[in-house]
Amino acid sequence: MVMSRVGWISSLLDRVRERRPLVQNITNYVVMNTTANALLAIGASPVMAHSIDELEDMLGLADALVINIGTLDRFWIESMYKAAEIASRMDKPIVLDPVGSGATRLRTDVSLKLLKNYSITVVRGNYSEMASLIGDSIRTRGVDTSAYSEEGAKKISIDVAERYDVVAAVTGPVDYVSDGGRIYWVSNGHPMLGRVTGTGCIATALIGAFVAVGEPLEATTSALTVFGVAAEKAFEESSGPGSFHMKLYDWLYRVDSKLVMEMARVDWGEA
Amino acid sequence: MVMSRVGWISSLLDRVRERRPLVQNITNYVVMNTTANALLAIGASPVMAHSIDELEDMLGLADALVINIGTLDRFWIESMYKAAEIASRMDKPIVLDPVGSGATRLRTDVSLKLLKNYSITVVRGNYSEMASLIGDSIRTRGVDTSAYSEEGAKKISIDVAERYDVVAAVTGPVDYVSDGGRIYWVSNGHPMLGRVTGTGCIATALIGAFVAVGEPLEATTSALTVFGVAAEKAFEESSGPGSFHMKLYDWLYRVDSKLVMEMARVDWGEA
Amino acid sequence: MVMSRVGWISSLLDRVRERRPLVQNITNYVVMNTTANALLAIGASPVMAHSIDELEDMLGLADALVINIGTLDRFWIESMYKAAEIASRMDKPIVLDPVGSGATRLRTDVSLKLLKNYSITVVRGNYSEMASLIGDSIRTRGVDTSAYSEEGAKKISIDVAERYDVVAAVTGPVDYVSDGGRIYWVSNGHPMLGRVTGTGCIATALIGAFVAVGEPLEATTSALTVFGVAAEKAFEESSGPGSFHMKLYDWLYRVDSKLVMEMARVDWGEA
Repeated sequence: MVMSRVGWISSLLDRVRERRPLVQNITNYVVMNTTANALLAIGASPVMAHSIDELEDMLGLADALVINIGTLDRFWIESMYKAAEIASRMDKPIVLDPVGSGATRLRTDVSLKLLKNYSITVVRGNYSEMASLIGDSIRTRGVDTSAYSEEGAKKISIDVAERYDVVAAVTGPVDYVSDGGRIYWVSNGHPMLGRVTGTGCIATALIGAFVAVGEPLEATTSALTVFGVAAEKAFEESSGPGSFHMKLYDWLYRVDSKLVMEMARVDWGEA
Repeated sequence: MVMSRVGWISSLLDRVRERRPLVQNITNYVVMNTTANALLAIGASPVMAHSIDELEDMLGLADALVINIGTLDRFWIESMYKAAEIASRMDKPIVLDPVGSGATRLRTDVSLKLLKNYSITVVRGNYSEMASLIGDSIRTRGVDTSAYSEEGAKKISIDVAERYDVVAAVTGPVDYVSDGGRIYWVSNGHPMLGRVTGTGCIATALIGAFVAVGEPLEATTSALTVFGVAAEKAFEESSGPGSFHMKLYDWLYRVDSKLVMEMARVDWGEA
Repeated sequence: MVMSRVGWISSLLDRVRERRPLVQNITNYVVMNTTANALLAIGASPVMAHSIDELEDMLGLADALVINIGTLDRFWIESMYKAAEIASRMDKPIVLDPVGSGATRLRTDVSLKLLKNYSITVVRGNYSEMASLIGDSIRTRGVDTSAYSEEGAKKISIDVAERYDVVAAVTGPVDYVSDGGRIYWVSNGHPMLGRVTGTGCIATALIGAFVAVGEPLEATTSALTVFGVAAEKAFEESSGPGSFHMKLYDWLYRVDSKLVMEMARVDWGEA
């Protein structure tokens, strides 16, 4: 990758650190701590609030909204719709993580309702989750990514982007990011990410921080690249998923323009 | 321990890694992240879903169900009963962790209802929790194990197994596992486990992965042995509960047949 | 700091370890694991229970109650009021963490109701949260502490203490603790605490353990000093927020009288 071509990725990282965007998250119980720590490590400010009774106030302060459907129930679904409605009205960017869409009808339904009824800016998921958004019959095995294929992932990112007029990111061994017109692919990252819960959710949360300071297509690509670089560095210093997880936060904090310039593996084409 | 006698423990560990069982957890807020990471580290696939509206779908995909009552309320209790009913009907193994049973009437009642009304396969708890299931008047101090005695633990595991026709594991300095006919005891583990929240819950979650690929008595014994070995290795590399906790995941990932053969301290007898 | 003057801090730490107080927490989803692990590391016993149906039983066993409003909703608010009422009746110390008070009306309202209607013993928050409790118009940016000033913090701790007849702690670069008559300030700690979620919540939880074994003003000051010392040691061994977070638990476990004597930076005056 020629350095000049990834300059915008570093710039967006620097901008996150200058502006410290406030990212409001309605997310799942499993990863709340994980994604809050990832946002703090990268230099953003996380807030986790879900009560119907304070969403208007909190979103008034926030620079972006992240909705992650990992542990749904009736009360949280109501909050998600309400938050999406308020953020749409306030014109704040919304990032959706359709965790487990395709695995249960409930999850697919909630994901589709969010995409159809509100102004979602970016949606990020794994292969089977994203496939389920365009009616593909890939059977999701939990939140697993076993069905992944590179050509399929590429196509799905473009199709989801076109269908819902969003930026769509299908993450896996290679991450594909498209707005329906252009497509980026990011080859950074490490398989050990699959051995720590919530690393997909971290990616989504980081997109929330980047989309608060840049254009959706570039912001999403930048967030995934920076995260992938941090993961590669973390792996170098780890001896298993525990130390890898801990080092991820160290490297989200330590990653800088120079490291991104050296390590980014990003390419692009027309969709 | 003669190697030939623990061969089945290693075999079950290998089988978990080959089959990657999907373990559906309805568990408490405190340890969701902890147990999901432990299941990923050992090589299984965790799912944490609790909505009444998707239990049927999710359990259709799952290989085992883990119910942990650590942070109860009315809505979660309803989900636990519903999940137990569906899994019983589907003939999937169910593992119960009666966290805090004996400490409050609510917890004792819910634990007993689950044991009496559904096909629970394995129940694992500490001394006072397990004693409360057979009406012993040991007063639980929170989720503490201060009342532990070896003879008592042994007797309680046999009594619980007989009373409810389950495999019962009473964990502590030595873990006792019985189906009412035979009893195994596992001397692996480390006292530092008591300084990290959710290590009992990790044990229960791992039992969920092993019981998905083997017979309940052996699967439970294997899971506790593998966990105990990982804890001993983690302690060697730690300088307090923070580094110990992190290293636990590394060693759940790194533990293999050879290490289990070398380190397992398992014995058995007739109940 | 002359050693004789901080002897009571070490004594309270020793007393926590001897008595292992049971601290009942109604806290937020993000930090449940974090604060439970901090309490275990320091030598206390955490319980996290929130169901209306078991509060009476659990508080009967507990030595202190911690209420943290980080992730509110209607059901949890109801539990918080009920727990505060029971603990007030039972004369057990109550520690309040008004997370995000000032950021949304809901949070300010709930914090004020708790302070006005129940026997709160200690309230700990950052500058803007604590300011909101006396009607100051500082606009909270999430749970951020950007508006901090030393003179302001000092004044706010005294004002909150007087207004609600509590011990009030305003934490930040320097922590101010007052009962309205005397004021202590603690200069221990490290800015890296701001890069890990829930470190304020850890401080509050530790106060819960100390207030169970000592007088509120001294207990609060001791807890903040011990935590600050642990944070300084943790930072020395860390290379970013991930390793710092992990080392915090190691040092909450390892910190002892001698280390506190050497490192405590505590001063006091009349309010």
